[in-house]
Order: sequence, then structure tokens, then C-alpha cells
Amino acid sequence: MTIAELDLATTSAVPPSTSATMRALVYHGPGKSAWERKPYPTIQDPGDAIVRITTSTICGTDLHILKGDLPSVTDGRILGHEGIGVVEQVGTGVSEFHIGEKVIISCVTACLKCDYCRRGMYSHCRRGGWILGNTIDGTQAEYVLIPHADGSLYSFPSGADEEAMVMLSDILPTGFECGVLNGQVKPGDTVAIVGAGPVGLAVLLTAQFYSPAAILMIDLDDKRLAVAKKLGATTLINSGDGHAAHHVLEQTEGGGVDVAIEAVGLPATFDICQGIVAAGGRIANVGVHGKPVELHMEKLWDRNISLTTRLVDTVTTPMLLKVVSSGKLQPSKLVTHRFAMNDIVKAYDTFGNAAKESALKVVLTNGGPRG
Amino acid sequence: MTIAELDLATTSAVPPSTSATMRALVYHGPGKSAWERKPYPTIQDPGDAIVRITTSTICGTDLHILKGDLPSVTDGRILGHEGIGVVEQVGTGVSEFHIGEKVIISCVTACLKCDYCRRGMYSHCRRGGWILGNTIDGTQAEYVLIPHADGSLYSFPSGADEEAMVMLSDILPTGFECGVLNGQVKPGDTVAIVGAGPVGLAVLLTAQFYSPAAILMIDLDDKRLAVAKKLGATTLINSGDGHAAHHVLEQTEGGGVDVAIEAVGLPATFDICQGIVAAGGRIANVGVHGKPVELHMEKLWDRNISLTTRLVDTVTTPMLLKVVSSGKLQPSKLVTHRFAMNDIVKAYDTFGNAAKESALKVVLTNGGPRG
Amino acid sequence: MTIAELDLATTSAVPPSTSATMRALVYHGPGKSAWERKPYPTIQDPGDAIVRITTSTICGTDLHILKGDLPSVTDGRILGHEGIGVVEQVGTGVSEFHIGEKVIISCVTACLKCDYCRRGMYSHCRRGGWILGNTIDGTQAEYVLIPHADGSLYSFPSGADEEAMVMLSDILPTGFECGVLNGQVKPGDTVAIVGAGPVGLAVLLTAQFYSPAAILMIDLDDKRLAVAKKLGATTLINSGDGHAAHHVLEQTEGGGVDVAIEAVGLPATFDICQGIVAAGGRIANVGVHGKPVELHMEKLWDRNISLTTRLVDTVTTPMLLKVVSSGKLQPSKLVTHRFAMNDIVKAYDTFGNAAKESALKVVLTNGGPRG
Amino acid sequence: MTIAELDLATTSAVPPSTSATMRALVYHGPGKSAWERKPYPTIQDPGDAIVRITTSTICGTDLHILKGDLPSVTDGRILGHEGIGVVEQVGTGVSEFHIGEKVIISCVTACLKCDYCRRGMYSHCRRGGWILGNTIDGTQAEYVLIPHADGSLYSFPSGADEEAMVMLSDILPTGFECGVLNGQVKPGDTVAIVGAGPVGLAVLLTAQFYSPAAILMIDLDDKRLAVAKKLGATTLINSGDGHAAHHVLEQTEGGGVDVAIEAVGLPATFDICQGIVAAGGRIANVGVHGKPVELHMEKLWDRNISLTTRLVDTVTTPMLLKVVSSGKLQPSKLVTHRFAMNDIVKAYDTFGNAAKESALKVVLTNGGPRG
Repeated sequence: MTIAELDLATTSAVPPSTSATMRALVYHGPGKSAWERKPYPTIQDPGDAIVRITTSTICGTDLHILKGDLPSVTDGRILGHEGIGVVEQVGTGVSEFHIGEKVIISCVTACLKCDYCRRGMYSHCRRGGWILGNTIDGTQAEYVLIPHADGSLYSFPSGADEEAMVMLSDILPTGFECGVLNGQVKPGDTVAIVGAGPVGLAVLLTAQFYSPAAILMIDLDDKRLAVAKKLGATTLINSGDGHAAHHVLEQTEGGGVDVAIEAVGLPATFDICQGIVAAGGRIANVGVHGKPVELHMEKLWDRNISLTTRLVDTVTTPMLLKVVSSGKLQPSKLVTHRFAMNDIVKAYDTFGNAAKESALKVVLTNGGPRG
Repeated sequence: MTIAELDLATTSAVPPSTSATMRALVYHGPGKSAWERKPYPTIQDPGDAIVRITTSTICGTDLHILKGDLPSVTDGRILGHEGIGVVEQVGTGVSEFHIGEKVIISCVTACLKCDYCRRGMYSHCRRGGWILGNTIDGTQAEYVLIPHADGSLYSFPSGADEEAMVMLSDILPTGFECGVLNGQVKPGDTVAIVGAGPVGLAVLLTAQFYSPAAILMIDLDDKRLAVAKKLGATTLINSGDGHAAHHVLEQTEGGGVDVAIEAVGLPATFDICQGIVAAGGRIANVGVHGKPVELHMEKLWDRNISLTTRLVDTVTTPMLLKVVSSGKLQPSKLVTHRFAMNDIVKAYDTFGNAAKESALKVVLTNGGPRG
Repeated sequence: MTIAELDLATTSAVPPSTSATMRALVYHGPGKSAWERKPYPTIQDPGDAIVRITTSTICGTDLHILKGDLPSVTDGRILGHEGIGVVEQVGTGVSEFHIGEKVIISCVTACLKCDYCRRGMYSHCRRGGWILGNTIDGTQAEYVLIPHADGSLYSFPSGADEEAMVMLSDILPTGFECGVLNGQVKPGDTVAIVGAGPVGLAVLLTAQFYSPAAILMIDLDDKRLAVAKKLGATTLINSGDGHAAHHVLEQTEGGGVDVAIEAVGLPATFDICQGIVAAGGRIANVGVHGKPVELHMEKLWDRNISLTTRLVDTVTTPMLLKVVSSGKLQPSKLVTHRFAMNDIVKAYDTFGNAAKESALKVVLTNGGPRG
Repeated sequence: MTIAELDLATTSAVPPSTSATMRALVYHGPGKSAWERKPYPTIQDPGDAIVRITTSTICGTDLHILKGDLPSVTDGRILGHEGIGVVEQVGTGVSEFHIGEKVIISCVTACLKCDYCRRGMYSHCRRGGWILGNTIDGTQAEYVLIPHADGSLYSFPSGADEEAMVMLSDILPTGFECGVLNGQVKPGDTVAIVGAGPVGLAVLLTAQFYSPAAILMIDLDDKRLAVAKKLGATTLINSGDGHAAHHVLEQTEGGGVDVAIEAVGLPATFDICQGIVAAGGRIANVGVHGKPVELHMEKLWDRNISLTTRLVDTVTTPMLLKVVSSGKLQPSKLVTHRFAMNDIVKAYDTFGNAAKESALKVVLTNGGPRG
């Protein structure tokens, strides 16, 4: 054992034997993945931590990865960028977390030192950003290595609900930052949310922090719209007839909405947004897009609108933690299905057939302390 | 004479005889216009004022109108939405201006009372907005009727230069509000302006209010770029080789610019903007667009950018007046040609052949007190 | 009758006989006031309107006036700056309201044309501001003349509750603008409100638009604190022991509050605010002060705080109207007593003994159509 | 040698012998200080760096310390919180700087990880803030230990001027953040700066980033006012007659200034600020105060003003670096005297008699590589 290894390991509780393995969901190219044995991760840098995963979940982006849509994800990668767990080891440079502490893992890794992090744009961290389950191994596993742990983990509030808190890894800050903050939702506003999937519903929940007068929810699926109603939507619009924009304009006396939030990621849903935004209004994009859209600048150039895009920075996580802890926000309402981590392949099937299964968020739990 | 007429005219200096006529540039359908006799305007509403034009100018939009591109402009319309003049008559409701006062005419008419005006969005005034030389008669004439005069005129600073001040009718607030304010130019920023025509140069002049570290000017015309250099541009890029975006990225070490300002109004120039905006940056659109553009959401969705559109609100006119009066901003540098108003047809020829004539702003002056 | 008079009266429904009188609460120097006959008001300027008062209320400021604290209020003045009524006459320059329309009277008069109004600072309108029941006759009467009616009245939403809506004349925008907006209340914030009188409670109600995590209410009166609890306060602190700041610091683990809102107007209550504001926090002053305060710059200079003062601008009245109309905000909860306008002297007694009478807002109603 | 030492020292260029000493200005209680031998600093934590000082300077705060005004500074402390130097050693956790790199030392130490740092309030860093030359040894020495080096040092731009750059340690960000940013200086504003000492002049220089229409400089010393004139002040007011506020009101037609910046730290200068701030204006405090001030809330409560305090966060240092590097800002104009570090006692004498010596900033340079 070299001195460097020794130093890095000094703050580890129980140095794992080098032969230790764990289980994880591993991607093997388009359409192929398996719950299989992988080596236990090891601390590489002073800022690293190893977290034993207790709870994780599946994101829509994971489905895209499995289809082979993201070339940055290569064969052998452990998937997942959301999770709750317990710190098992920390490098010598980790100052904010100690072994045995329960933590929320942020989907975005932040070194806190680069120019982007210094500006609060963790999404574009020069050494991090969204890398978990993308360019480095992720959280759908028994253990995960978290680089830059001090900027990428958050203390789990004692006594809180893991199901609620795992929504803080990605979906809640994404909905809030990309949709609500960028959309500048204000008291009295009329807000339309296009897409009532998990992220759209996260927008819906967090938009209510600012007391808009009306929230119009637009989706193809009446079941999802019914959930939206329960979670605070004031008007439901099924876009199945292809006239969603028309219906919104009718509901707003022709004026359109103050804020239109795109939470799907398709040209058609983007198009609804540009068709309904009021003069002086904002379009906030949350959806992940795979294709260009046609932007009607010939209609919009004199409408005084703004359009924003954003990969979540997770800078609002501490605030969201406070609000979820106070019980004012109950994101566990988004959870529809629960599986043991061992059954993750089945969980993907359910989440992949969301419409049929009436699935929103699917929660995964690891049973015991070590795989 | 009815009582109402009498009341409305009571504050007129010299009630014109009803047979009075004046001369004006009148639009007669695509490609047709003439400097001809028209009836002298008469006060219609308590908020109206009649202004004798001393100085006017021609806008790029006027060329579009002449081509027939704006269906809102119909046969018989007097063109022009910029001008300096002297108040000749005021309705009983006008409180801010008196007969004989020299004024700057804003291109945007503001009632000050509607919901949009109350929010500072005069561009979308329910009773005004851009109507001069569009849906009502304009300023390329000897006299013009200004509705909602209290919200649509500004006092001419005593001793100021008319050539400089006529730039406050449209071009300076347009460049400043749509480009600089919406682009949130900040000290130390790197700013790119696509288009070195009069509006692009107005952006260039007013961007310097905020001390950006670098201003890159992009245009096809080296003569215009040379003017930009004199007015403060730090880097000149001729986009004639079709690789403007590439050159900008090279100049910015691959990072792109904090603010990209579109001051042309074409898909190709818009495309440069989306190709050069840095993560976390802003695209501010100033150009008037006639066609949709392709927006690369597949590249931009995670770049944390904002894109804004705006028709000028002219809410910054008082501030701009102060700065021009103090001599810190010298918009008369944009004036390349001068004509008597009588020669307006010749002036349009010069302005219409801007590249060949090296024309930027063309100033028109009325000679005497009454046509 | 002169032509001018005729013109001004043309839009009147029923020109009142010049001998008409009405009844009003008239101030006659410190400690003296009476419900007595006064001449019916007459339109003076094109922008004027006459409103028949249906509902009014009494403000803490009115008590100060009665004591003689405001030298701007002179013998013979009709008091009151809050009210709901019906438009009886309008000048020729009034475009937003018609005879017979029910309206909310704003406590602040706005010409909409001066530099302050153009910046949204109606409170400092060069021709208005707070003048009603101060330098011109007010609303505790059967009729009132409203100058600059287009900027000073708001349409009463059809079917709304007059008791709720009369809170929009002053108390709700005051609490919201001076306290909540200036205090920059944000989701997750800890907010302290010093003073649980009507204005402090208006702050409490409107602070909840932004979902703060905790609202600490501080007052000497347990009954008022109990009301605050019902209206959403999360922590109640009776400041009677002189250690309010100490208690707040205890409740916030020594860190203090993000926002401290002063809603009393005394050196002692101001002092609590500066003792509890966290580093980086805001002190927003709402109270009307009669004396200087000692500001501990030796402690605050390096605390990165902001302190704001504000006379309400009523620029948020349209938004508040929307939210009250939607039922999300129920300001009628602040009403504890009701009187006929005839009994206004008794109403002042009750309101003047607020602690003993457990009085918050006291509502006054005019019975019939004409006095 | 223990493993820990070895690890911490691995990235050191030349491990100093443990007997090494250096020279430094050491505080020995009120009125006592000496340039004497002290032990060479040693890395204590992975985030530490040791910097060999090449250039330093003296701050007004250092004079306060010498007088004994700051109880946090105790006998034996090395003074100084400004400096340029070369990195000599780094701990294992330092990732942004390497040995041999020239750096600017920030007066504020930032861990980047605590809640305050995450909000950009480095001034209140839980582990740092202003500690250099205060609670830990400072920069008026041959070497200094910089904790949390990654957040507390900035790369020195190649080819830049050390005299200019040392102004970035404290004075420029202080003037800019506390005065200009907090004062929200905008194009066209009228700004008054009370105090033409080094910090007031730093405010003056950086206020011009935002193109105010007028900058009024107020001081007792005509020589300093003359410097202010050269650096861009438009109006000079000698406050020696005790009527500074009156003069400012005369210069502003009674309206007062948009922004009043306090750059002295005395009740009398603070009082000027509250006497001259316009309705709707801002008072930004930069001065270090030792006593409470009387705040005229009885006059200010309805004036819609804001008052801010701030200890510099140095979050704008990267931007200021860019602007100084581009030559647009020339802070070396503030340097009036130069001394070898050996002569620091003499330098303090000069700086302590600033008025008589016409001293602004006094620059100190270390001659050779090791003392």
C-alpha cells in the first residue's frame, strides 16, 4: 500500500477488501442492461465520497439512455443519477460530510471552485455537471462514488421520508429552477404547464410557492391530468384533439398565459408554448429536446417575450429541503410504484410503460447494508 | 362651430383654417409613394396634440412598408414614426406640453392608462404602440397629429442638437432596450452584435453604458464595420465567408459570448447568434423578422440561455435624453446624409441604397414654419 | 353656465343641483371632528370623477390626524382615504371609468404622467400621492371627488365582497408592497413581523404568497397574536417582557431572520428589527414614524443587510384584486366591527380603543343612494 | 517526519527547513508594532497555500487596528490583508493553483462550501471572511499562509502591473460591491460619494462602469477633491463649511441624488447621505462605523429609499480582473507612495498622515525571494 492510498483511506470506516464487489444496473448498449456484479468503487481523489445507496429512482432520461439516444453513455456504465444513501468513506478533502451520515445525492456534481460553480451554474461545472450515470457510474447500484462530495451531497434531514427526499435529487429542483424560477412565476400569474409527467408535476407543485392565480395543465393522458387536479392545477386541457393552444387562448380571453412551461421536449409541445404565451410573457423550457424546433420569430419578434433553457443547477436544493421538511411540499405524492433494487429490471418495465401502468415516479430500495 | 370643437381648439395658438393643407410623404401601395398635399390634421380627442415637424428621418421599417411588406399600412397613409417638432395645438386633456414647446416624438404612442402602459410595456399599449406611420398618419410631413401626447412626446432639451435628438425617436431606445437591457449587458461582458446597420450601431453605442470588456461587431460590409470600429467595437468580423460563428468562437477560446444581439432580422443572422452564445448567455433579438427560424433546442436545452424579443417600449427615453444631453453619447455620429424634407424621395433613394451610398441615418429638415 | 363648465359636465349622469349637500366626517383641529353637512363636490378638472361612497373604513393614520399629528391636515378637511363606491360623474378626460361603475378608491392618487408615476412610484406623484383625507377632502363621506381618476380608481370585480375589497384601498397594498415586496420574501425564508395590528396582519396575509418556511409574529397583545396564528403565523412572540429580539434569536438558533418587517412605527419596535435581522437579511419598514431611531451602524456595517422605507405605490393593486377575487386571499378576516356611516363617530371610538375592543378593521357603510 | 506532514508537503517546491524564519510587521497592542522575525508559516490543512509576498499595501483598517480599535486583533498578530505574491507551497486539496504561480490575495477568505459561500456571501464564510491580518496572520510579511486557497486567491494576469493588481485585494471590490452594486448605480443616475479617500475613489472609478450622468464628490480635503476631478467626478463639494447636504440639494434642484455612497464611516458623513438621497433613491454604506448613527425615520419612512451595508464579498474580483486587464480601469492611479517592505514602519507613518503627505495608497514591495 502506497502512502497516497493510505492517506486517502484514512477517513474510511471500514476499508473494503480490494476483492469486494457489489451489484448494479449496467448498460450494455442500446436495449441491453443487466443487474450484475461490479467492483466496489474506490476513492480516487481527496474530494470523493462513497455512498451506500438506500433509495433510488428512475428518470425519463434513463429510458432515453437505454434506447441508445445518449452517445456519452457507453457500454459498462452503471446508470442512475438520483438517490439517498449513507456515507461509507470520504477522501481527506471532504469537510462537510462524515462517515455514517445519511445524504441526498444531487444529480449534478459541483466542484464549487470553477468559474461556473462560482456563478451558481453547477450544471456547467468544469469538472462535474450531469455526469452521474452518464460519463461516470451512477446510483442504481448498491454503492456509488461521488466526486466533489462537498458540492454534490446534501444532509438528509433527520426523521424525513426517503421517498419524498429522493425527489430532491433531480425532479424537484429541475421543475423549480428550469420551470418556475426561469419562468419567473409571480403571485396572480396565469401559468400553463405542457406535460403532466413527473417533471411537469414537479413544476406544478413548486409553482404554487408563488401563488399564481391559475395553473392550466396540458397533457394527452386524462389520468395524469386527474393527478394534476389533485396537486393544484386549476384547469385541465387534454391536448389530444390537437387544439391545445386554441383552448388555452379561449380560457384566457385571447390574451394567453404569463408563463408557458414546456415539460415534454418535443417540437409539438414546444409549439403549444409559443402559441399561448402572452405579450410580455415567458416560455421556460424544462423538457429534453432531441430535435430543432421552428420558432415563429415573425410573430414573436415584437411580443416582448423571453424564452429560457436550463439544465438544473440544484442551487435551490437547500431551500427545497427546508420546504419539504416543513411539510408544505409533499413530493412523495408523485410516487406510484415501489420495488426492491433487486427488481430494478421490472421497475424499468413499469416505468417504461408509464401510461398503461399509470406510473409516475418508481422508487427503488436496497434491502441490507452491503451487497 | 359646435361647443365640442370649440373646447378642443381653445388651447390652439392659431386655429388653422379648415381649408389648410400641408405636404407629406404618402404611401400608395407597394413601390408607390409621393410628396404631396394632404389636409392639415385636426385635434380629435382631448389627449391629442398637433406638432409641426422640424426634423425627421427614415427607418429601415419604412423601406419594408414601401415594398408592401406590412399589410397594416394602407393606401393614403403618411409614413414616418420619428421626428422633432414644435407643438402647435393641444387638446384639453394635455397637461405636460404647451403650445410652442419643442418636442421629441416617440415612435411608440402610450396612453399611460391601460394595463400594458401601467406595466411599462408601452409597445403594447391598448390604444397606441407603434401606430405612427403605420395605422395612423406619421411624421414625414409638415405636421402630425400625436394622440395621447402626454405619453408620446418628450421635451426637447434647450440648446440640444436636433440631429442627435431625432435618434431618440426610435433607434436609440430600440437598440438600448431590445438589445442592451434585454441582453443584460454587464461590466466585463463579451458582447457580439450581428448587424452594423443603424440599429446595430445604436446597440453598440448604448452597450458601452455598461462597460463590457469586448464588443464584437459582425457584418457583411467592411465600411459599416469601419464605422463600428470608430464607435467602440473592439473586434470586427466580416461574415461574408459564411463562418462568422466559427470566427467568434475562435476569438472567445471556444466559449462564445455572454450576449449575442441580433440586429438584422434574418434566419441566417439569428443562426449566428445561437451558434455563439455561451452557456449561461443571452440572445437579445432586435431585428424585425419576416420568417420563422430554426431554433436548435437539441443543442440549447441544457445551455442555460435566455432569448428575448421586444418591440421598443421607449421607457428609457428620459434616461437617454439625460445622457445625450450630457454629451456622453453622441448619436449624431450615425448621421451620414442630410436632405430638405422636400427632397424626401431622393432621401429614400439614398437610404434604400445604403451599401452603395455608405448611408446610415438620413436626416430630413423642414425649412419654414408652414408648408 | 360657461362653456367650460358645460364641457366638464357633459359626461355626468345627473348634474347635481348646485345647492346639493352631503354628509361627511369633518376635521376641526386636534381632537375635534363631526359628521356634518358639506357641499356636494364638483368636477374641477377633465381627469376628475365623483364617487358615491358605499363602504369605507378607518385607518390608524386617521387617528394620528385626529390627534393633530399631521399639520398638512387643516380645519374643515373631510377625512378618510379608503373606500368603495359608484361613479356618479366623470370629467371629459376620464377614459377608464363610466358613470354607474362600481370602483375601489386607491389611497394614493396617481396622475400617471409625471416622472414618478412613469417609474411606478405613484406614492410620489407630482400631482397626487397620498392627498385624500389629507390635503384634499376624503372618503369618510357620502361623496368624494377623485382627481386623476384613471390612475386612482380600480374596477370593482363583479360579485365581489365590499368588505374584502375595501382592504385594497390601502392596507393590503401597503402590507404587500412596503413589507413583503421590499422585504423580498422568498420561499423558505424565515420572516418576522413586528406588530400584529391591521397592517402587520396584512403583511402576514400577503407574505404567504411567497411560501416562507416560518413567520414569527411579535406583538404586545395576546389577542392580536391569536388572530395572527389563525391567519398563518407559525410562531407567536409577546414582546411584553422587553426581550423580543432575544426570543427571536433563540427561535432561529442565533442566526436571526431573513426578513424583519416593522409594522408599528416606534423606535422600540424598529430596534427589535435591527436586533434580529440575519447577515444578508432585509429590514422592511411599514410603520409611520414620528421620531428618529438609533441605527446601530457599528454592528450593521459589515452585516450585508438592506433597510427599506416606502409609502405604498398601489402598483400591485391589479394583482391583489386578482388574488382576492380568486378567493386565495380573504382580507375580510381583518374586519371585526361594522357601523353605518352615520355612526362614524362611534366607529372611531371603537377603533381608537382597539385593544380593549379587540378591534382590527372597522367597516362603515352608507345606507342609501344620496344623503 | 510523519506521514501527514509528508503528504501535506508533497506538492511543495522546496520544503523549508523547520528553523526557517521570515520578517513581518507584528502588532503588539495599541500603538505598538514592529518589523521583526517570525517563524515561516507551515501548511496546516489540505486547502492551505503558502504565498511569498511580492507586493502589499496598507488599508485604513490597519490604522484602526494599530490604534487598538479592533479587539479581535491580538498581540503577536502579523498585519495586512492585501497582497500579490507567488505560490510557494500548496496542500493536497488545492486544485486551482500550482507552485510558482503568481496570485492576487483576496482580503476575504472563502471556503466555498458553507451556506454563506454557496450564496456568494464570502464575507460571512463560516470558516473565513475577513480573517487575514485580523484573526490569523496577514500579508505585511515575506510569506503568508492562505487557508482555503482555492477560494481566496486569484490568478495574476500575465504581464499585468502589480501596483494596479494589488488594488484588487480589497479596495476595488469594496468600492464596487459595497458602493456601486449595492447603490444600484444606473446609466443617467446622479451619484454622490461622501469621502474622497482611497475607498471613495475606488467607488468613483468603478461607478463609471455604469455611466452615471453626474458624480458629486464630497470631502474636506481640496487635494483629494482635485484627484477626484481627474478620476471622473463631475462636481466637487468641500464639506468644510458644514453645509454639504445643502450644496448637493442646490446642485440637484432640490431633488437630491439617486445614489448616496458613504465612504467614511462617521455619523456626520452618514448624515449627509440621508440628507441628500432623493425619494426612491439608495444609500450605500461603504465606511467602517464605530458608533451608532441617528436615522431620521420620521423623514424617511415615506421616501421609498433603501439603505445597504456590506462587507465586501469579493465575488466580483474575476470581473474586475478582466476590466483592469483590458486597461479600461487604471487603479494604479490611486498609488501615491512606494516603499520597500523593509521600510513598512515609515510607510505607515506616511499613510497615517495622509492629509499632510497627500497620500492615497502606499505600495510596499519585497525585494528578493526569501528574507
